[in-house]
Amino acid sequence: MKFENVTKEKLLQKLSEFKIETPSWGFERGGTRFETYETSKDRKTIEDRIEGATRVHELTGKGERVSVHFPWDGENREEVEGLRELLQDNDLKAGSVNANLFSMRPERELDDRLRFGSFISPYEEVRESAIDHVFDCVQWMRILDSKNLVLWLPDGSNSPGQMSFYDMLDRTLEYTRRVCETLEDDETLLIEYKPFEPAFYATAVPDWGTALYISQAVGENAKVLVDTGHHLQASNIEQIVAYLAKSGKLGGFHFNDRKYADDDLVAGSLRPYQLFRVFCTLQEAYRRGFLGEKDLAFALDQSTYVKDPTEAMIESIENIMKNYLKALLVDYRKLRTQREEPDPTEADRTLRKAFEEPVKDLTREWKEKNGLPMDPIGRYRR
Amino acid sequence: MKFENVTKEKLLQKLSEFKIETPSWGFERGGTRFETYETSKDRKTIEDRIEGATRVHELTGKGERVSVHFPWDGENREEVEGLRELLQDNDLKAGSVNANLFSMRPERELDDRLRFGSFISPYEEVRESAIDHVFDCVQWMRILDSKNLVLWLPDGSNSPGQMSFYDMLDRTLEYTRRVCETLEDDETLLIEYKPFEPAFYATAVPDWGTALYISQAVGENAKVLVDTGHHLQASNIEQIVAYLAKSGKLGGFHFNDRKYADDDLVAGSLRPYQLFRVFCTLQEAYRRGFLGEKDLAFALDQSTYVKDPTEAMIESIENIMKNYLKALLVDYRKLRTQREEPDPTEADRTLRKAFEEPVKDLTREWKEKNGLPMDPIGRYRR
Amino acid sequence: MKFENVTKEKLLQKLSEFKIETPSWGFERGGTRFETYETSKDRKTIEDRIEGATRVHELTGKGERVSVHFPWDGENREEVEGLRELLQDNDLKAGSVNANLFSMRPERELDDRLRFGSFISPYEEVRESAIDHVFDCVQWMRILDSKNLVLWLPDGSNSPGQMSFYDMLDRTLEYTRRVCETLEDDETLLIEYKPFEPAFYATAVPDWGTALYISQAVGENAKVLVDTGHHLQASNIEQIVAYLAKSGKLGGFHFNDRKYADDDLVAGSLRPYQLFRVFCTLQEAYRRGFLGEKDLAFALDQSTYVKDPTEAMIESIENIMKNYLKALLVDYRKLRTQREEPDPTEADRTLRKAFEEPVKDLTREWKEKNGLPMDPIGRYRR
Amino acid sequence: MKFENVTKEKLLQKLSEFKIETPSWGFERGGTRFETYETSKDRKTIEDRIEGATRVHELTGKGERVSVHFPWDGENREEVEGLRELLQDNDLKAGSVNANLFSMRPERELDDRLRFGSFISPYEEVRESAIDHVFDCVQWMRILDSKNLVLWLPDGSNSPGQMSFYDMLDRTLEYTRRVCETLEDDETLLIEYKPFEPAFYATAVPDWGTALYISQAVGENAKVLVDTGHHLQASNIEQIVAYLAKSGKLGGFHFNDRKYADDDLVAGSLRPYQLFRVFCTLQEAYRRGFLGEKDLAFALDQSTYVKDPTEAMIESIENIMKNYLKALLVDYRKLRTQREEPDPTEADRTLRKAFEEPVKDLTREWKEKNGLPMDPIGRYRR
Repeated sequence: MKFENVTKEKLLQKLSEFKIETPSWGFERGGTRFETYETSKDRKTIEDRIEGATRVHELTGKGERVSVHFPWDGENREEVEGLRELLQDNDLKAGSVNANLFSMRPERELDDRLRFGSFISPYEEVRESAIDHVFDCVQWMRILDSKNLVLWLPDGSNSPGQMSFYDMLDRTLEYTRRVCETLEDDETLLIEYKPFEPAFYATAVPDWGTALYISQAVGENAKVLVDTGHHLQASNIEQIVAYLAKSGKLGGFHFNDRKYADDDLVAGSLRPYQLFRVFCTLQEAYRRGFLGEKDLAFALDQSTYVKDPTEAMIESIENIMKNYLKALLVDYRKLRTQREEPDPTEADRTLRKAFEEPVKDLTREWKEKNGLPMDPIGRYRR
Repeated sequence: MKFENVTKEKLLQKLSEFKIETPSWGFERGGTRFETYETSKDRKTIEDRIEGATRVHELTGKGERVSVHFPWDGENREEVEGLRELLQDNDLKAGSVNANLFSMRPERELDDRLRFGSFISPYEEVRESAIDHVFDCVQWMRILDSKNLVLWLPDGSNSPGQMSFYDMLDRTLEYTRRVCETLEDDETLLIEYKPFEPAFYATAVPDWGTALYISQAVGENAKVLVDTGHHLQASNIEQIVAYLAKSGKLGGFHFNDRKYADDDLVAGSLRPYQLFRVFCTLQEAYRRGFLGEKDLAFALDQSTYVKDPTEAMIESIENIMKNYLKALLVDYRKLRTQREEPDPTEADRTLRKAFEEPVKDLTREWKEKNGLPMDPIGRYRR
Repeated sequence: MKFENVTKEKLLQKLSEFKIETPSWGFERGGTRFETYETSKDRKTIEDRIEGATRVHELTGKGERVSVHFPWDGENREEVEGLRELLQDNDLKAGSVNANLFSMRPERELDDRLRFGSFISPYEEVRESAIDHVFDCVQWMRILDSKNLVLWLPDGSNSPGQMSFYDMLDRTLEYTRRVCETLEDDETLLIEYKPFEPAFYATAVPDWGTALYISQAVGENAKVLVDTGHHLQASNIEQIVAYLAKSGKLGGFHFNDRKYADDDLVAGSLRPYQLFRVFCTLQEAYRRGFLGEKDLAFALDQSTYVKDPTEAMIESIENIMKNYLKALLVDYRKLRTQREEPDPTEADRTLRKAFEEPVKDLTREWKEKNGLPMDPIGRYRR
Repeated sequence: MKFENVTKEKLLQKLSEFKIETPSWGFERGGTRFETYETSKDRKTIEDRIEGATRVHELTGKGERVSVHFPWDGENREEVEGLRELLQDNDLKAGSVNANLFSMRPERELDDRLRFGSFISPYEEVRESAIDHVFDCVQWMRILDSKNLVLWLPDGSNSPGQMSFYDMLDRTLEYTRRVCETLEDDETLLIEYKPFEPAFYATAVPDWGTALYISQAVGENAKVLVDTGHHLQASNIEQIVAYLAKSGKLGGFHFNDRKYADDDLVAGSLRPYQLFRVFCTLQEAYRRGFLGEKDLAFALDQSTYVKDPTEAMIESIENIMKNYLKALLVDYRKLRTQREEPDPTEADRTLRKAFEEPVKDLTREWKEKNGLPMDPIGRYRR
């Protein structure tokens, strides 16, 4: 087990330093609009979900921080304080705080006007209700000692007539700016983009270009969050990552895999080479010095209705760590030379060589050193 | 109001003869996996839904037949007989019978094993339960004096490991054949295809090629149903319609519009020229004599969570009738000559001319003759 | 012929004021990588192409300005001065100047290193050669009294190894900035984006987000050019137009239609309703006051290998004018109210009503007033 | 180097038995419609191309058969006999014969009417000329002792008016049938499908469904050829392969990789896991007994304008052999059990385990045994 351009010790250290959050909501059985096939053993309560996160953390050594979703994980200060204790009791911390703007009022009847959006709603009352919820989330974030607020706007329109794009953008800017202004210097607003669903004609923040534009407009603290499953077919995700990194506005990731829509499948289960390329792109940025690994919030965001959700979480972590590790094995100095020559055939070989490298022995050694089970899914089942 | 190649009387007659079913399920508020924004005024019961269908029929003169969905619209013989009376009382008839295979057991707890599919399930018990439900649907179809059974298999897999494609196809063929064999000579099995959702890696019947293959394999009575929203990006739907028509296996349509996925939007709301082209393709088939207009089951299939569902149904009917009418205005004889010359520039003009023809006066006259309101949505609201 | 919210005189005036350039290169027979089916009657020389532009201008009243492409339309000062005279002799003017960076050295053997790109090339010599060509274009632009320089970078990579995204973006920024810096205050750099072709893994400026980012970085004079055929499947082009307009960086359009790739088909031949929606989006911006109609450079950009190119140009102009006119018929005040209520069903009807309005009589009257033939393609053929 | 379910000897034997053709046309520099960046060292003549094929065969042990393309590789009997000798002199054989129908008359001026298609042309004369060329190809196939005729119809239309889908399909069927009828029992017609390019509105044989339908209609000898780059975005290629295999009509492959269109990139350079899954799907079919490995014609079909074409051919072969080998390492018995349980998490692990297995040692041993260079591209360069 020898690697040309990096020592084993360095690799083991990087594996240890790599952080990735698990999403509390991903421990429940997911579903489609057709059906949710809940089983009697599925996790349903916040206690269940944190228990799942705890198990994953114990079995993989990752997921020390758990992304939370409000109001799903708490509807008021007391519940959030309870959540903080629940996390502490399980040696976990809160990760990013996600504000749910599509059904944000669980304590009373859902406001059906939310179907016209939250921040972009034609109803001022709904817009204000939405931002109030986000303001609550900011408070709760501080209770939880979390520094990242994720804003995914589920807003858009379902037909050309429904809404003016100018109102859509104006309101998105206005309300996002108001959120950004409440943040402290060490807090970050992560703006997530998504091309469609639940809106089917236009989405307020459909692509990275919009997210970048907004993040530039609303303030220093605003950055862009890349969900790997939120792109139109054939998008080059690693390029988007690079361009965002270069713009200084890359803030974090939601990992999952997809083939058609926002499928929320296990990360790396369909396109492992793409996952590897995303990590290579980040490595290049780190090496060029304009991005720090700790600048980014890595999290899983997935929802499985077939596989057991907790097992799927472990599977994703294993895939991500493997591809992260492989990206560390790339000989970037050689790659740079090959690109300058230019020798694309050999440059591709340099990438592929690292991707095809077996990392079983390395991960085994890392797991042994950290007292982790070799087969976390097997252990989980027992 | 004069048209070169067709008389006004003929057009009015064709408008009268054109039949299209409304879907009972489409009268409820739709939703996404995120939320369903039900309002207190939304229709929820079978009585509500049939009331909606009745209103649409009264206001548009279309929708005399209502597509029904079991078990949503009835779970046993008694309820189906009740449905038959409910329809009769409202001067309606049952249209196609749709078998729901994704949550087919309302009377008892949902079998969570359905997440592995119905006909393709690895559990024989689930497969048999699924086909038993379809056999029930066949019985209920006869009670309702309907002749069309729609089979949409929500089956597939969410990862490469989950299932062998060979088992997937074998079981689909076997169970579909068993369904087909129970049908009488004058009954038709309409096989629907869809590329994804709820399955996100592979779907058992993902495309028209599979549906055609199966329909050829299982029997004379099997035909293919085209849902206009069930195609991969950039598919040429009118060509698929033509090729199916030519193969002798085109059986019917589910109309709706879409931009991204199976968006279930109002028919013709985004791509009216495509809707027109589909009708032109059918007109050509009728004129060439290998397809009869009455051979096809036309139905709406849409689900709106923003617009009022009943209004959306009226909007779709108006769009469809307009584009159907425009397709009748095409000078197909001239078109054929232009294509043979070939003169694509003038041939496109021939199509576009008909598409751009105002048909307001014609539809107004038809509505007057039939005692229908000029503005059915306005009337519905009052 | 009466319209609710706009007078006929106003419409006729707007039709007269509407300007759209024809592209000199579009008068030649186009082709694919497989074959170009040139006929003996096809235009090939610059004289032929300008003759085509002249005919289109005479027959449609549009295309007074002709977009030119260097070095195709001239390789040195003398030839460009000749082009200026040629245009003047035909009562035409030069429109936007397009710099060809994929085969920019006709006078000597093509530099095969261009396959690695122009501005992003790893070869400094090629990069400098490319910008020298653009500097030439700027000089020639002034000779031609044109104010718009279109920069489409055909640069990118064909495999993950080939190039670093950071070098790709850095060089694109650096060289684009250098171009922008040479422009006078009243000159505009129009940055065009395109997702793929000729590059098949990554393109330097693949989307509007990148083009916006670059235009913001390189200077006041830089704006974004939207080619309607340069988007990934399912992109919402009218939304992109709106967001660019709002950002203050929308600079112009290349019109054409497409179904799969950059098909360069006749504008409005497949998706007329989308073309209409683009114009509606612009109308809204004009009415809200943050965009002026004269701020935008409208041009055709198409390439036909089946239809006669000159006829296809006329067909596009007719389609564009019709949909531009229909967009003027929309009752935007009513639309705004419907959107605020919100009443998406009626708002869609407001749009559709204008789209379905016959504008034959209007265009006929406008043509008569301007001494233009009713059937320009028929006249062209005679 | 031990594998659970297969011996090393068996693997080495399978590696030896695996056959894949190289395409003569792929040894020339490819290009896009914009430019072909030919270098002075590029191969241009048939002698050059066969020299390239010879080098690849010597360096990789694969490519013993070379797919040929007429009239590019010969325009008459004499030239084809010359080709046969050229191949023999280099220890090569002819593989599949590809009939070029988009520019089939090199000996005299190109018939520009081919822009309306070949078999589907409205000009009977062009249709007959096209089939005459295919009949020539059949004769030449026999001279070359080849058994496979590949038919890729570049036919289609660029606008809705251009052509009736019914004529398109009728003529495709009629002419394909006539070709099929001339074949001997041991000869196979491989029908290739492709969604777009050069046609941009509709393609005569756009998808596997059409190809299957035609192959069923025209005769026993007709099968379907899958080009891995010829699918709409998000198509599940391995499922298509499986369904075709099951139908008895899978005939062969053209391998390459793609991201956007028919990019013709190096096989496995972007989506290696998909390539692996295609081979797994085939392995399953072999094991279930309804498909024999020798029933299929494997060939490369790629066209590179950046990388050196000969090197790119070697790169593809290495990628294909690696993924073929990994597909042999899958424990299909275990997989089947996991699928039946069902245990998708473990089933995915079974696939991934084989995909991540390093096969360097195995391929090294195989190369040593066969006297092949370890680094064929390095050797080629020297």
